[in-house]
Amino acid sequence: MKVNVGKKILKANEEYALENRHLLTEQKKLCLNMISSPGSGKTTILIRTINELKDKIKIGVIEGDVQTDLDAERIRATQAPVIQIETKGACHLNAAQVNRALSNLPINNLDLIFIENVGNLVCPSAFELGESGKIAVLSVVEGDDKPAKYPAIFARAKVLLINKLDLLEAGAQVDFDIERVKADTRKLNKGIKIFAISAKTGAGFAGWYDWLEKEVKNLRGR
Amino acid sequence: MKVNVGKKILKANEEYALENRHLLTEQKKLCLNMISSPGSGKTTILIRTINELKDKIKIGVIEGDVQTDLDAERIRATQAPVIQIETKGACHLNAAQVNRALSNLPINNLDLIFIENVGNLVCPSAFELGESGKIAVLSVVEGDDKPAKYPAIFARAKVLLINKLDLLEAGAQVDFDIERVKADTRKLNKGIKIFAISAKTGAGFAGWYDWLEKEVKNLRGR
Repeated sequence: MKVNVGKKILKANEEYALENRHLLTEQKKLCLNMISSPGSGKTTILIRTINELKDKIKIGVIEGDVQTDLDAERIRATQAPVIQIETKGACHLNAAQVNRALSNLPINNLDLIFIENVGNLVCPSAFELGESGKIAVLSVVEGDDKPAKYPAIFARAKVLLINKLDLLEAGAQVDFDIERVKADTRKLNKGIKIFAISAKTGAGFAGWYDWLEKEVKNLRGR
Repeated sequence: MKVNVGKKILKANEEYALENRHLLTEQKKLCLNMISSPGSGKTTILIRTINELKDKIKIGVIEGDVQTDLDAERIRATQAPVIQIETKGACHLNAAQVNRALSNLPINNLDLIFIENVGNLVCPSAFELGESGKIAVLSVVEGDDKPAKYPAIFARAKVLLINKLDLLEAGAQVDFDIERVKADTRKLNKGIKIFAISAKTGAGFAGWYDWLEKEVKNLRGR
């Protein structure tokens, strides 16, 4: 019985996810679902990306948080349109919430919608939102054993952003073997793109921006 | 229907939690459930605590991970008894798993059992395991907005360990206002004890050890 009901809830989520996917595909909008632990730097990455690509890609954001709209406020300062979803305790966004948020975003004027999921390396990866792809973020202070210990998101993401590179380079005593993370991730996910970045300094963003621009262009060309 | 079944699952969990609590109370064993994001340093804190309190408190560990027994291996090197629970995808430990693990630990010889929960700041705080108390861990690189954004665990913990103090002091550019974290946490939880520590250098552990020794002593005296 537990399993049946679990499946039923997932099915309802799948239906909304499908609806979202149809909407986004029809309108040729790229939609990326960002997943990471709390504090890995998702919002800071988004703010830099929005500001630096302003003239090339029109970006909107759906912000998921258990509580508060602190992150949405930070995004709002960039002038990008943003919708906050407060999950009130739930540990992941679901497709129905994203469905409502999409209808409140001016998506006609956008090329790319980022969904910043609730900070959680486990649950969000199990819930399809209708997105074009998932972006995993791992900061170097979280440890290089994370792809082995929490494989689900690393196996499913199109891109892995390894963030807070500045904390490695500053000579701080952070033990983090980037090559181990890359190797462990590629064992799970052969085609994944991996960019090592610092959202604070801007290092390493060129590859990420190229990837985004290509994805937006490919979608438009279809 | 969703709600009913959800409640049913929670009830089964509550029953196991009650059983665990009875066992631990009868045998006067302290049991602490450690909850944090992935990579905040739970295992490193445990290893230092086990080694440095070896002559005073006999410690055993129940290790929860989505996958792998990497953490259990690290704990095993301290000679402390450890039981690994692999949740195979689940985002939190449940009381039934802890029940089985307790029956496999030599608890007669132990004063204190640490449960290292799955790395996740959201879900584990909703599932009682029968523990004597919850310990929240937050590392300074995760950001000082976490008590506001993820209040559940900060509201329920007996102790908050603010870890990776060395990354603040090393002059690395980490923006983290300890006073904000303390104030936001105490708004949620008046009686909480807060210790700022570095599991890497050992800084700040004296207060944590004092608290542990007093808790073990109080329990024995009952």
